[in-house]
Amino acid sequence: MENKYNVVIDTLGSDKGPEAILEGARLVLDEFKEVNLTLVGDENVIKAANLPSERIKIIHSPETITNYDNPLEAFYKKPNVSVFKACEECAKDEKAIGIIAAGNTGALLVGVLRYLLNEKRTRPALAAIIPNIQRGYTCLVDTGASIDAGPTQLVEFAHLGTDFMKKLYKIENPRVGLLSNGSEPTKGNHLVKETYPLLAKEEGINFVGNIEGSRALAGDCDVLVAEGFAGNQVLKNTEGTAITLITEIMKFGKKSGNEDMCKMIAGYLMKTYDFESLGAGIMLGAKKYVLKCRGSSGPVAIKNAVKILVNIMNDKTFYE
Amino acid sequence: MENKYNVVIDTLGSDKGPEAILEGARLVLDEFKEVNLTLVGDENVIKAANLPSERIKIIHSPETITNYDNPLEAFYKKPNVSVFKACEECAKDEKAIGIIAAGNTGALLVGVLRYLLNEKRTRPALAAIIPNIQRGYTCLVDTGASIDAGPTQLVEFAHLGTDFMKKLYKIENPRVGLLSNGSEPTKGNHLVKETYPLLAKEEGINFVGNIEGSRALAGDCDVLVAEGFAGNQVLKNTEGTAITLITEIMKFGKKSGNEDMCKMIAGYLMKTYDFESLGAGIMLGAKKYVLKCRGSSGPVAIKNAVKILVNIMNDKTFYE
Repeated sequence: MENKYNVVIDTLGSDKGPEAILEGARLVLDEFKEVNLTLVGDENVIKAANLPSERIKIIHSPETITNYDNPLEAFYKKPNVSVFKACEECAKDEKAIGIIAAGNTGALLVGVLRYLLNEKRTRPALAAIIPNIQRGYTCLVDTGASIDAGPTQLVEFAHLGTDFMKKLYKIENPRVGLLSNGSEPTKGNHLVKETYPLLAKEEGINFVGNIEGSRALAGDCDVLVAEGFAGNQVLKNTEGTAITLITEIMKFGKKSGNEDMCKMIAGYLMKTYDFESLGAGIMLGAKKYVLKCRGSSGPVAIKNAVKILVNIMNDKTFYE
Repeated sequence: MENKYNVVIDTLGSDKGPEAILEGARLVLDEFKEVNLTLVGDENVIKAANLPSERIKIIHSPETITNYDNPLEAFYKKPNVSVFKACEECAKDEKAIGIIAAGNTGALLVGVLRYLLNEKRTRPALAAIIPNIQRGYTCLVDTGASIDAGPTQLVEFAHLGTDFMKKLYKIENPRVGLLSNGSEPTKGNHLVKETYPLLAKEEGINFVGNIEGSRALAGDCDVLVAEGFAGNQVLKNTEGTAITLITEIMKFGKKSGNEDMCKMIAGYLMKTYDFESLGAGIMLGAKKYVLKCRGSSGPVAIKNAVKILVNIMNDKTFYE
């Protein structure tokens, strides 16, 4: 089978080190014959992984950015930060369809702003595709790329999410909800109260009103618009609560002598609600696909992120 | 047994109507012989419930406030709103230890500000006592009483939560976390970044740093400080996610023919994570106990809220 496209992977900045990311790269090359990889990071470490040389390109750019650095300052002070180079490479390489990164979100955002910005859009947003109880998916946007965003940015997020759900999930007229602390139009903080009337009158947006945090998994809307700080709470809290309950089920299994049954139930829930292995957020508003994996991503999460890109290229849905 | 104290209940404003609240009142009178009730609302409806007249006092104040009203305007325009009268009565009656209300939170806040404010505190906060995986509880404050609060208010919330956990859970030096979008001190929105150094240097506060939404149930802190909008997301999203997973377990049981086992597991989880029946948030900073039940509260939720007050009076913990 002929190789069809490239995916750029930043091998640095994740919690488990470049080895875990490179092990993920190996899984990718095994499973997806149509994908070649551009691996950005420390050349020696990448070479040591012994991946098939005809299917990888190595870009030596060994500097990292920590969660304590200011990403924008780092862009000017540290020329060899891997995520910036990865974005640059992704923009330059015509065969590259996207980038996968598991490090600092702010740094990825700066890289995207500098190299991958879609000219029509003001500022990218980091969306998460979250499962809902109706066996569908909701695009939660933003989950933390634009902390302290204003009303006009939230309207922009609504468009980004709408375009995404139209394209990826073939939903003709995606329902857009606004995350609030109550479903009534009178509820909200200053930002929500300012944004509500803008969304209500915005052309091309099928606004269905305010959505409470308790309904994030209810499937009441296809796009859930939130300012990044609040959206981050919903995403992470959903993950944390799901994992807590799954852990409780396993404990209960041990305590009550029903371990096998409880393992089966936990496994069933993990398939839908284990965000850690589901894998990735997508940066909307970029001119190529930009996937942000958790900092804690292991090999499988990296492979699953590439699978998302393969799905997209094959005209399937995000998590198909 | 002699009756020991009064609890004031606002019978109006909940989703299920006064009948459900009055049915809860009946459960209370059956179970807690030391409690008498002051019931505020529509006299005719309350009388129709046929509760033992020697243990109830009725205050006719039949007006309600909807989620579409502005609570502060309503305070001046609608003199007979039940929740305002309930707060007034609770303040006046020496034997009243607290008030239970299931209607509009903003209206309850206005009632507390007007009649029940503790002189030492600037503004009350609505706390939720959430379970954590370590079999302890975390006081999440604020969950929506003070939307768009500023840094000095968040420091105040830290004190309110600290005092509460010392008193109710006998924790000597409660650990205080600040809800953020990352655990590093550099993470946060403008508000969190301004609040962090204030909490770090605040006397009497055992500040342990930023806490992510994913760790809300992890037991990393005893008090989790949040601005009301973000705290509301964490509380409601935790509820929503827990109920979603419990629903999935039941579905799985039906599908796989393991209904009994799945019911057992769901029941086990509900005991800890079904916030709906656990019942109530507590308004900290008031001079009496102010419990806010969900709008959707049924009779058992009302009874459980009174049980919390009985626990407190008997020097037990909140959910004992």
